[in-house]
Amino acid sequence: MPFHQYFNGEILPIDSPIFKTNDLGLLRGFGLFDYFRTYNGVPFRWNDYWQRFENSARLLKLTLPVTQQITEKVLADLHAMSGEQEVAFRFVLTGGYAPDSVHVVQPNFLIRTEPLPQDNPAGRLKGIKVLPYDYVRDLPEVKTTNYVHMVLMADELRRQQAADLLFHKDGEISELTRSNIFIFHGDKLITSDRNILKGITRKVVMELAKPHFEVEIRPVLYKEVILADEVFTTSTTKWVMPVVQIGDLPVGSGEAGKRTLLLQQLFEKLVTDWGK
Amino acid sequence: MPFHQYFNGEILPIDSPIFKTNDLGLLRGFGLFDYFRTYNGVPFRWNDYWQRFENSARLLKLTLPVTQQITEKVLADLHAMSGEQEVAFRFVLTGGYAPDSVHVVQPNFLIRTEPLPQDNPAGRLKGIKVLPYDYVRDLPEVKTTNYVHMVLMADELRRQQAADLLFHKDGEISELTRSNIFIFHGDKLITSDRNILKGITRKVVMELAKPHFEVEIRPVLYKEVILADEVFTTSTTKWVMPVVQIGDLPVGSGEAGKRTLLLQQLFEKLVTDWGK
Repeated sequence: MPFHQYFNGEILPIDSPIFKTNDLGLLRGFGLFDYFRTYNGVPFRWNDYWQRFENSARLLKLTLPVTQQITEKVLADLHAMSGEQEVAFRFVLTGGYAPDSVHVVQPNFLIRTEPLPQDNPAGRLKGIKVLPYDYVRDLPEVKTTNYVHMVLMADELRRQQAADLLFHKDGEISELTRSNIFIFHGDKLITSDRNILKGITRKVVMELAKPHFEVEIRPVLYKEVILADEVFTTSTTKWVMPVVQIGDLPVGSGEAGKRTLLLQQLFEKLVTDWGK
Repeated sequence: MPFHQYFNGEILPIDSPIFKTNDLGLLRGFGLFDYFRTYNGVPFRWNDYWQRFENSARLLKLTLPVTQQITEKVLADLHAMSGEQEVAFRFVLTGGYAPDSVHVVQPNFLIRTEPLPQDNPAGRLKGIKVLPYDYVRDLPEVKTTNYVHMVLMADELRRQQAADLLFHKDGEISELTRSNIFIFHGDKLITSDRNILKGITRKVVMELAKPHFEVEIRPVLYKEVILADEVFTTSTTKWVMPVVQIGDLPVGSGEAGKRTLLLQQLFEKLVTDWGK
């Protein structure tokens, strides 16, 4: 696997030890990231992902050490070196090395080339189970590196044969650990815009849905999710994934809904044709 | 500065790049730490710090890769190599390298040797200003690496000539970013035990206070702090530090209180004699 990574201007093998131990990402959890992939060798919705990355950096008051144009060249190099048709890229921007372990001096910028996550087309038809979890992400509009609860609950999810956590707080839902959530009440498609990281797949799915459904963007009650006809979640790796069980409760009939499957097909068509 | 660090069994120069980039501490903020120092060359309250470190690890479900006894030998080696009479040690335990960026396989354990933070005896007599901040730490009883708000607010603190943030939520205070808080109402010393990281200096100060004051341990309202006669904060680096201003409001007379200064003197005597 000749995958490589970019770090502050250098290209290095993916397994190289790179970070010194006074990095604020490591010592203080002060870091953000982004993650996207190629289809047919072309980065999907690259401008959207870059803008979100810029936005996260701005909100954490970190100066990006590179332009979008320079980054594009780096991505092309990393992609070529990988020898793979399709790759995923993970950007990580931390507060950098801090002599006093508090103040940002110069951010560290990393781009990792990663193999695509294992695809699971059968799971997309069958749907997933999620566990309700009383939590709301801190600084939700920033794609920070803080996923402590996800890692902490990973074994429990396995034990309960669940794929993810559904965050709710004070009766309102926000998102899953790494994906957005949509519900169908009849032909009305509803998704929250509060306390969430605004996913690029979420945005694409809303574009795809508009000709077919009424789309409502507003806070969503936990109760509404329980009573929904269909529920699904969207992310770069999950695409359009039906949610068929929440804790012990089946969603609707307990099977992937037809409206969800329509959006899933539209999304699959889009990425199948991407860059062609 | 011949300071060194220990990483998973090896001793390396303090500036070595060590961490590979798929570490869960770096990618997912899944890490915890602890921090303590020597007086007269002897680690202060080492058993207490070790127990707290063990407790943090247990709560994040991370297995410690070393025993307390082995760690003691490492500390002695690092200390000797430093050539310094006094040093500080920073332990960092992360979720380790994760092929899938989610599941813990084997934690990474780092011990950094650090120079003592600059001492500020004049500041301890004059006291500090803090800014109220609407926040409560996630998983407060774990010394996680999540200090995003502290780093984010570092420049604003400088601008307002404040030394730290005072966390409050729903009318109740918890702690400062890296230290505990005590208030005096008359001769009654009050401190919270809820939503806090239980500091070792906090514990020592309660021991020192008992012969002199009535000590009350219970949730503390933000309002009570504003109306207190004296306020101070405790930590490994701050010792017993008077808080003389909260936002725009002076505490009591606006000067370090006499009860606080008594506790400060008792603490200073303890550490001056430590290990002798």
